[in-house]
Amino acid sequence: MEQLQIFSPATVANVSCGFDAMGFALDQLGDEMTFRKTSEKGTVVITKIEGAKLPYDAQKNAASFVALKMLEDAQADFGLELEIVKKYKPGSGLGSSAASSAGSAYAVNQFLNGTYTTLELVKFAMLGEELACGSPIADNVSAAVYGGFVLIRSYDPLEIVSIPTPDDLYVTVLHPQIELKTEDGRNVLPKKIPLKDAVKQWSNVGGLISGLYTSDYGLMGRSLEDIIVEPARKLFIPHFDAVKEAAIASGAVGAGISGSGPSIFALSKGKDQAQKTAHFMDEVYKNKGIEYNIYVSSIGKQGTRIIQP
Amino acid sequence: MEQLQIFSPATVANVSCGFDAMGFALDQLGDEMTFRKTSEKGTVVITKIEGAKLPYDAQKNAASFVALKMLEDAQADFGLELEIVKKYKPGSGLGSSAASSAGSAYAVNQFLNGTYTTLELVKFAMLGEELACGSPIADNVSAAVYGGFVLIRSYDPLEIVSIPTPDDLYVTVLHPQIELKTEDGRNVLPKKIPLKDAVKQWSNVGGLISGLYTSDYGLMGRSLEDIIVEPARKLFIPHFDAVKEAAIASGAVGAGISGSGPSIFALSKGKDQAQKTAHFMDEVYKNKGIEYNIYVSSIGKQGTRIIQP
Repeated sequence: MEQLQIFSPATVANVSCGFDAMGFALDQLGDEMTFRKTSEKGTVVITKIEGAKLPYDAQKNAASFVALKMLEDAQADFGLELEIVKKYKPGSGLGSSAASSAGSAYAVNQFLNGTYTTLELVKFAMLGEELACGSPIADNVSAAVYGGFVLIRSYDPLEIVSIPTPDDLYVTVLHPQIELKTEDGRNVLPKKIPLKDAVKQWSNVGGLISGLYTSDYGLMGRSLEDIIVEPARKLFIPHFDAVKEAAIASGAVGAGISGSGPSIFALSKGKDQAQKTAHFMDEVYKNKGIEYNIYVSSIGKQGTRIIQP
Repeated sequence: MEQLQIFSPATVANVSCGFDAMGFALDQLGDEMTFRKTSEKGTVVITKIEGAKLPYDAQKNAASFVALKMLEDAQADFGLELEIVKKYKPGSGLGSSAASSAGSAYAVNQFLNGTYTTLELVKFAMLGEELACGSPIADNVSAAVYGGFVLIRSYDPLEIVSIPTPDDLYVTVLHPQIELKTEDGRNVLPKKIPLKDAVKQWSNVGGLISGLYTSDYGLMGRSLEDIIVEPARKLFIPHFDAVKEAAIASGAVGAGISGSGPSIFALSKGKDQAQKTAHFMDEVYKNKGIEYNIYVSSIGKQGTRIIQP
């Protein structure tokens, strides 16, 4: 194989109650990346970046950094050229750096004839997350690599559990184009939380996972509650409450902050409902003087995947 | 129907990671209760209590108190006599008062021709828990009424989720006959916990529930970890660490404190393994000068049930 074009999905981390523990992949939103084999052993050269201002220095770009680490670890006798086409903006809370990192891990493993397991790909992709975000967070990259819903059962040792995704589950995302640093989103979080709040939260995690296993949309919706992180982070997201209320009023299963924001996600049963929800969310944001995008997608059961050949 | 004899199971609450949110019922350990219809409208008379020192005053005994409340609520035109045979000791951490309360709620509903839903029975049984323990805790009573594994997704409004139980799942319980008040077990708990510990805990709740849905014993075992409550409460339970280690060394899936203790439970795949685990746990306790019982049971999928007629 000399050239490979892949898709790496946008991802929603946390999923309300599952802060730092859950995530899911989108199917119809994500980056495209093209890799070309070169004879320059162990090197990675970025030849094009479209759709975002990201470093071309291979040591500073998450995608190329992951590729470098893998080529080194595998003692590969080849190098790679890399084109990145970002189809959605970084800083969205939709795992932009994770898409780059996961996509790179997935693609390089193809060139290495599947040397690494899926879990190992997540570990490599986490190096890209560490470079981009300062912390080797697993939720976005594991959702991107595994596809569907994932639970990070443990970081040490890393254990990812794939949770089944109901066929008819769709997501609507509203991305307000405001700047919000992941670090800010972290700094606003309480270091300690009341035990009784933690109990509520893990009851909801249990409910959400149970709802996913049984395709019980009502249970999913009631479980999409975050009494710990959302109250702190929503203050950074203009009109958050109004958008969430509009999504639920439209008939969505539930809604919350995607990752550390600013994107707001809503889950719906069926594409029509997800589009109706998009319309309701749009009504809140239009004429507010903030640029924004709205996406509707099914849950991407496959995650990273080959576009061609 | 003039007379009814029912079984109400012992229950394990918390199940390690699922503090205040999860529980399960045993199949081969529980109380027997016999109810007789009388013409004394709205009254409940306890005629016999075997196996434990419990109040005969109908207003002070959890079982009769629940029955009184139900007869009153349903404006029943009859009364009941009640015999309670406790098959295991109160104060065990195996939901003794819950067995009384849940058993009563279940039985009285039979006399009322199924007036109340299963969820309503839990709510009535919680009144018995409040009387006996000072707090309307739902985990033991809901496990007793629903059977199998339960998740208390929410207290307000009360929502119980039945989690599927793998056929081959068994429990071994070691009950050290030491006195331990539920209040003491509560007072030792931290009011606030680090957010990062809470994340670990809800990741494990997610893992345990996922393991139950997929009969993945390894995942269940790895998820049976409690970094918040067990470290505080195990100090009240002599030889806890040694018993837990012995259970796991024997091949059990995992082990932890049953409810607020002092009982220690271990989950196993298959009856033979559960009995082997019992043997290993027994080895730790024998000759230590503490009275104890060991029980082996499958998970009681049915919960409260009629013995006769």
